[in-house]
Amino acid sequence: MSNNKKFVEAITAMDEDFAQWYTDIVKKAELIDYSSVKGCMIIRPYGYAIWENIQKELDSKFKETGHENVYMPMFIPKSLLQKEADHVEGFAPEVAWVTHGGHDELVEPLAVRPTSETLFCEHYSKTIESYNDLPRLYNQWCSVVRWEKTTRPFLRTTEFLWQEGHTAHATAEEAQEETLQMLNVYADFLENFLAIPVIKGQKTDKEKFAGAKATYTIESLMHDGKALQSGTSHNFGDGFAKAFDIQYTDKNSKRQYVHQTSWGMTTRVIGALIMVHGDDSGLVLPPKVAPTQVMVIPIAQHKEGVIEKATELKNRIASVARVKIDTSDKMPGWKFNEYEMKGIPVRVEIGPKDIEKNQAVLVRRDTREKIFVSLDNLEQSISDLLVDIHENLYNKALDNRTQKTFEAKNMVELKEIADTKPGFIKAMWCNDLACEEKIKEDVGLTSRCIPFEQEQVSDECVCCGKKTETMVYWGKAY
Amino acid sequence: MSNNKKFVEAITAMDEDFAQWYTDIVKKAELIDYSSVKGCMIIRPYGYAIWENIQKELDSKFKETGHENVYMPMFIPKSLLQKEADHVEGFAPEVAWVTHGGHDELVEPLAVRPTSETLFCEHYSKTIESYNDLPRLYNQWCSVVRWEKTTRPFLRTTEFLWQEGHTAHATAEEAQEETLQMLNVYADFLENFLAIPVIKGQKTDKEKFAGAKATYTIESLMHDGKALQSGTSHNFGDGFAKAFDIQYTDKNSKRQYVHQTSWGMTTRVIGALIMVHGDDSGLVLPPKVAPTQVMVIPIAQHKEGVIEKATELKNRIASVARVKIDTSDKMPGWKFNEYEMKGIPVRVEIGPKDIEKNQAVLVRRDTREKIFVSLDNLEQSISDLLVDIHENLYNKALDNRTQKTFEAKNMVELKEIADTKPGFIKAMWCNDLACEEKIKEDVGLTSRCIPFEQEQVSDECVCCGKKTETMVYWGKAY
Repeated sequence: MSNNKKFVEAITAMDEDFAQWYTDIVKKAELIDYSSVKGCMIIRPYGYAIWENIQKELDSKFKETGHENVYMPMFIPKSLLQKEADHVEGFAPEVAWVTHGGHDELVEPLAVRPTSETLFCEHYSKTIESYNDLPRLYNQWCSVVRWEKTTRPFLRTTEFLWQEGHTAHATAEEAQEETLQMLNVYADFLENFLAIPVIKGQKTDKEKFAGAKATYTIESLMHDGKALQSGTSHNFGDGFAKAFDIQYTDKNSKRQYVHQTSWGMTTRVIGALIMVHGDDSGLVLPPKVAPTQVMVIPIAQHKEGVIEKATELKNRIASVARVKIDTSDKMPGWKFNEYEMKGIPVRVEIGPKDIEKNQAVLVRRDTREKIFVSLDNLEQSISDLLVDIHENLYNKALDNRTQKTFEAKNMVELKEIADTKPGFIKAMWCNDLACEEKIKEDVGLTSRCIPFEQEQVSDECVCCGKKTETMVYWGKAY
Repeated sequence: MSNNKKFVEAITAMDEDFAQWYTDIVKKAELIDYSSVKGCMIIRPYGYAIWENIQKELDSKFKETGHENVYMPMFIPKSLLQKEADHVEGFAPEVAWVTHGGHDELVEPLAVRPTSETLFCEHYSKTIESYNDLPRLYNQWCSVVRWEKTTRPFLRTTEFLWQEGHTAHATAEEAQEETLQMLNVYADFLENFLAIPVIKGQKTDKEKFAGAKATYTIESLMHDGKALQSGTSHNFGDGFAKAFDIQYTDKNSKRQYVHQTSWGMTTRVIGALIMVHGDDSGLVLPPKVAPTQVMVIPIAQHKEGVIEKATELKNRIASVARVKIDTSDKMPGWKFNEYEMKGIPVRVEIGPKDIEKNQAVLVRRDTREKIFVSLDNLEQSISDLLVDIHENLYNKALDNRTQKTFEAKNMVELKEIADTKPGFIKAMWCNDLACEEKIKEDVGLTSRCIPFEQEQVSDECVCCGKKTETMVYWGKAY
């Protein structure tokens, strides 16, 4: 894990400087490192182990819902990227271009994929012929590149890791079902695996994906009251199918365009994990995603029998949790700090006095509560505690969101809340782009989503006063 | 899987045109597809499922031997790539260069990684401080790009998937141990998982990795007598450490350079799988790597009880193997062809007469033998058969290699064998580059490796006649 040479240094307090607190954590918990490649990050073993757990869980959900993994080239010829007009317009400003191969200039520049719709579409146009070939349910795990001016680890980097699902269906209804199904897979994953509550909803036209008919999103609220778009699912209708001529022969021998979707989740959810659950001692990981769920630390380990007993406990715990033991010669206090910084959900302390009393001390990372448990029921105590920690983290995050969700009926209220109370603001909107733009300009808020669960905050647009029944979550976002 | 519209078409016979046979298989078994990205391939679900099994097995071996996964940026600034002189000289001719980000020209071009030594070295120079930080045992799964003029699916593509291990050690001995340990992991993997026998040995200086002190390789022989380098492990000594200033403080507080290794295996092993085991009916997959190990096909499935019984068998087999059932309305003959093309190791046929006799028909993909087994011991019969198929495939491949391995004592013999008998040729070599180059020029053979298991074919260099004790495997290679 880490080296011996120093105590973990304290990190900046959250309330003092949230951005610096975040940067401190990603470095001190050894999630990432910077390199000479501007805007890109090195994901270190501990950060990557978190991503591996995310991948494993999501991948099994994708396979359960009938999806297959594939791998597309990382390059997209310029002419192919330009085939769908809205799509290229949206992505062109942030594309990295390969212009030379070896010592030769290329005849046609290649984009390093910012997303792979165009490649999937080209493949589908060649391989889909009849209704028997549908639905086509593909996913790929890869990295993509979007040229960014300002970057922050996990949240916005020039290169990031993600998965992108791409599906083709016979009917518009099936495509819409798939779009919502995958949004629900993401929502369940965030809530049940990462302990992060989400708002499900639809993006406004201004905020939707370049080339999509409709974009759906899950939005989560960070500890500082800023929103994070945590996963998106797009219904393309037949727009790409028409641009790429993806047709199939239906049961009546008629040629029809397919209806498509795409959906993606990225390494930025690791940023969400940090900013939703972390505290002034470092990272706090929900048990299901934690690479190590339990760390056993022997106390007074030079005393006879302590290391043996601690090792025995570790082996017993291994039947119910991902567990490690630290028998290095560092001081226990150093170890406590180190594993708190890394957000390991449970610490088990065992020393000579505990052995005498047939007990162990469990220390929860989330509440820092110490629990004395009998060694007789150790496995059960650990299992129960892990479940409890997950629930507590989820509820804490939900409380934070509830406390930081406000309502505004007019621009004066909207501005006052935006200026003084970071969080989500629920406000009515007339569906007019002009109002959405005015709110951004005057108040600095963007529409996060039109939630599926609508509420009637008032009956007038917060901006222009026009009658409306549409409620929108507004916020400042990462 | 596939669509209904046609019988699988026959493929070119191996002996008629091996290259065309190979191309037919990768297309007809639906392993890959071409795209408009020249030199790159689309890995389709069936091909990618094979790669996923390879990844899963290798990754568990890497973790068992103490390695951790990380992710480095895909870009390398030109100045960083140039830091180690031999390394950049070796890779510069095949690098793809990003010169523009968005609408702006970059101040410094970025290489799309052809391999990541330079990035790992930069990271190590920042994060390794004392002997406590060693050994550093990292691996990464990613894609890399090498600009190739002539490409073939899996064997040589502009972009390919691989893993690259990068380690740093306190001593030269430890680095050498690691280098050979990982070579052995690869060799065991090919032999025990892919059923491909390998020759382990060292590359000559001419053939070693750009920047390495020594490169070790496993070489396998394809059905057509051509060799395939199937995995390499490099000892860098302290060359990169000096170029990148990677030093640690030893126990005596003295600064020392680290000793490094790297090792990689790529999607080209899928090419080896095809060319070692395949036949004129298509792919033949060894059971351990096969995405589907057993395919159950009901015969006369419209008859009462057949589909039910076949499904029951499928569920029973699921306890011992990865199994699927095909109850589609295609003809059994169509299904047989389709799954033979895909190389599924065992086909289970079950029809009304079999049900009457309490039996099933197992058809081996490797020998096409039909075996009638009692349903009472079905699980055991399947398990045993899968083991037997693995062994048979391994032995067949070993026989092929033995039959196609020759010896030559002088240039006349060497040339005659090279011109008429495709395969490995064992011949003595004086360790002189001039002779190695002359053999390439005059006979068209490259040195595959100096095998660990040396034999005394003669006591003189096959080329110049100088006394030597070094025996080399020569061949034509993919």
